[in-house]
Amino acid sequence: MPTRWGRQRLALNKEFSMNAASTQKRQGPLAGIKVIDLSRVLAGPYCTGMMADLGAEVIKIEVPDHGDDSRHLGPFIDGESVYYGLINRGKRSIELDLKSDSDREILFQLINESDVVVENFRPGVTQRLGIDFDSLKQHNPQIIYASISGFGQNSPLASYPAYDIVAQAMSGLMSVTGFPETGPTRSGESIGDVCAGVFAAWAISSALFARERHGESAQYIDVAMVDVLLSMQLTGLSNLFANNKAPSLVGNRHPVSTPFDTYQAKDGLVVIAIASEKLFQRLCECMEKPTLSQDHRYRDDPTRTINQAALRQEIECWTEQKSVEEVCDLLLNAGVPASPIHNLQQATESEHAQVRQVLTHLHDGGTPLISQPVFFNGTKPHVTQRAPQLGEGNAEYKPTTITTKSAETIQ
Amino acid sequence: MPTRWGRQRLALNKEFSMNAASTQKRQGPLAGIKVIDLSRVLAGPYCTGMMADLGAEVIKIEVPDHGDDSRHLGPFIDGESVYYGLINRGKRSIELDLKSDSDREILFQLINESDVVVENFRPGVTQRLGIDFDSLKQHNPQIIYASISGFGQNSPLASYPAYDIVAQAMSGLMSVTGFPETGPTRSGESIGDVCAGVFAAWAISSALFARERHGESAQYIDVAMVDVLLSMQLTGLSNLFANNKAPSLVGNRHPVSTPFDTYQAKDGLVVIAIASEKLFQRLCECMEKPTLSQDHRYRDDPTRTINQAALRQEIECWTEQKSVEEVCDLLLNAGVPASPIHNLQQATESEHAQVRQVLTHLHDGGTPLISQPVFFNGTKPHVTQRAPQLGEGNAEYKPTTITTKSAETIQ
Repeated sequence: MPTRWGRQRLALNKEFSMNAASTQKRQGPLAGIKVIDLSRVLAGPYCTGMMADLGAEVIKIEVPDHGDDSRHLGPFIDGESVYYGLINRGKRSIELDLKSDSDREILFQLINESDVVVENFRPGVTQRLGIDFDSLKQHNPQIIYASISGFGQNSPLASYPAYDIVAQAMSGLMSVTGFPETGPTRSGESIGDVCAGVFAAWAISSALFARERHGESAQYIDVAMVDVLLSMQLTGLSNLFANNKAPSLVGNRHPVSTPFDTYQAKDGLVVIAIASEKLFQRLCECMEKPTLSQDHRYRDDPTRTINQAALRQEIECWTEQKSVEEVCDLLLNAGVPASPIHNLQQATESEHAQVRQVLTHLHDGGTPLISQPVFFNGTKPHVTQRAPQLGEGNAEYKPTTITTKSAETIQ
Repeated sequence: MPTRWGRQRLALNKEFSMNAASTQKRQGPLAGIKVIDLSRVLAGPYCTGMMADLGAEVIKIEVPDHGDDSRHLGPFIDGESVYYGLINRGKRSIELDLKSDSDREILFQLINESDVVVENFRPGVTQRLGIDFDSLKQHNPQIIYASISGFGQNSPLASYPAYDIVAQAMSGLMSVTGFPETGPTRSGESIGDVCAGVFAAWAISSALFARERHGESAQYIDVAMVDVLLSMQLTGLSNLFANNKAPSLVGNRHPVSTPFDTYQAKDGLVVIAIASEKLFQRLCECMEKPTLSQDHRYRDDPTRTINQAALRQEIECWTEQKSVEEVCDLLLNAGVPASPIHNLQQATESEHAQVRQVLTHLHDGGTPLISQPVFFNGTKPHVTQRAPQLGEGNAEYKPTTITTKSAETIQ
């Protein structure tokens, strides 16, 4: 009944005209696309957050009264989860009990007028609830349905629980990150979740293109965190295939090029990254030791890698006399890649971060939002609405709630 | 002169009918899309590799005689760079000297009949060569042009050199990865490059959709490695915004939840990841210490985090008596997230990796290819062609070379 729904929603928009998120004209490459977001916590919501940034209308389906588990994850500001707030920017929220027949009926109505569904339940759950791809395509034969999970829908591990650290451990990424002294190391960010979300967003946009061009029928997308992290390991897999031996921990240094590492300066660590003879020559000149590049121990990359301990001493004799800023100024102006190691405060407060609009500062002066990182035609499409209160879209999207409310108003 | 070109290429395809890459019908969501790839080494080529996997025709423009620098990066098998081979799967290669007027003219012809351009030169280089967005859109008013760089086109740092480790350092990611003992830690893979490539691929597919639906004119996409890595740090940025203090190094443990870390088993480290009271209760039952969950020191997440050293001892008393496999079997079957830490050989040889077709094994029995990780409609679109020899598409795509070769054949 899409027409009836369309009319109902139009009427309601008048009543709720103060709600900017619903009435504001959305712009961006995905304007006009409607997404039903059944996902929770990180991988799925990150994917749909990216879509909202590009102008898609994202309707987040949440468990009545409780909402997405991440609403209850700290840290909090004024009782609201900052984490939830960052990930769910610009979306609408409605409460549906997917175990109830009548609420599932509302979901089917929404599916009927939508383009995309995203879910990240454990494989098998959507079948049990009757909201899997095969069920939902009955309600919309052109739907694009994306499932994100730890191991994928058909993996022998599919039924096991998978958090980000599990994906990092099983994909081999931890085995190549860190120092021999401290062992395999987790990336400090949940990159398994986030990268799976980005790959899903890419697959969805590609499927939207295919549907638009070729009139594709319903499409099903299946993304797994472990597979995504594995597919990204170009350096490690190159070494594995060539040497038939798994690469091991090398700390911050490059597995092949030297000097390419972190070095001690007077006031902290500094990154210096040399990957050619020309750059090594320039580094030696900056260090005022131009003859070093002719030293037989440092004549090429393999020799420098063998003698890296001695070369580190030479370099740190120089860097330890200078601040990180002095080293970077000298090297960067000579075209040698170098960098301070910023913490997140420094990274977000830099002039670079301002110019590149890494954060979105809203007029209310509250917590900034993270914006998607890509500029399109010199501007950055991003949302200007905070994450929704639980169920704030109920009245607009749920006909039963609407009827009750209207009845109350009349009385 | 698109028609003349079209006819020429048709005639040539007959001559080169043995070249499967050019004549094979491409399938996948991006079938029918033609990409001119001006990019080198990793971020750009990773992006266009993903597009080739989905059926796009990718024509890689390489420096005559030398080619992409990554052709000369080890490790090598039979004199060929494994790294280049993995990243440039399924593409065509032609040699063009972009400093030469006549070769640039060929580029303009190719642009005229293409959909997408990808480049990752240092900002400013394409302007100097006359192949920047403004120049190329003269030759194709609907072109989608993506630039990938370390800092972005308009950053105050734009002119500085940026390798992956620089992006990891400046984005703050290194500052939250690793152990206090060993300091800020580089992810062992070039995730700054790779993630920038994935975000670019997402932006391009979204732009292709917008062009298809709205008939958009030329679109320009600007992606920076530092911005991408910053935008992915949801956990770290949540903590920064809530505490107004940059998060620091916490090793493998979770910054908020406990126990959520790596633990010593009899034969190696094992991951155990608990993020709810229910899971902690289950862990205690698996350890046959069901009363531990009532211990006042471990009654909730914050208390467990304060007393994590004591809790670690309790857990390792148990894990040290068992193998990693035994711990994982017990915990996973009780629904508790746990995992061995695989190296890349184990990760690629697992039953999971086989079922999920993480690698593509070609009929020639040589080095496997890495496939993009997403299944579409139950199958995995990927290329079945190895990376091209330098200039192997010259005859097909370069009219001057073609004329010369034909003349030689006639003589």
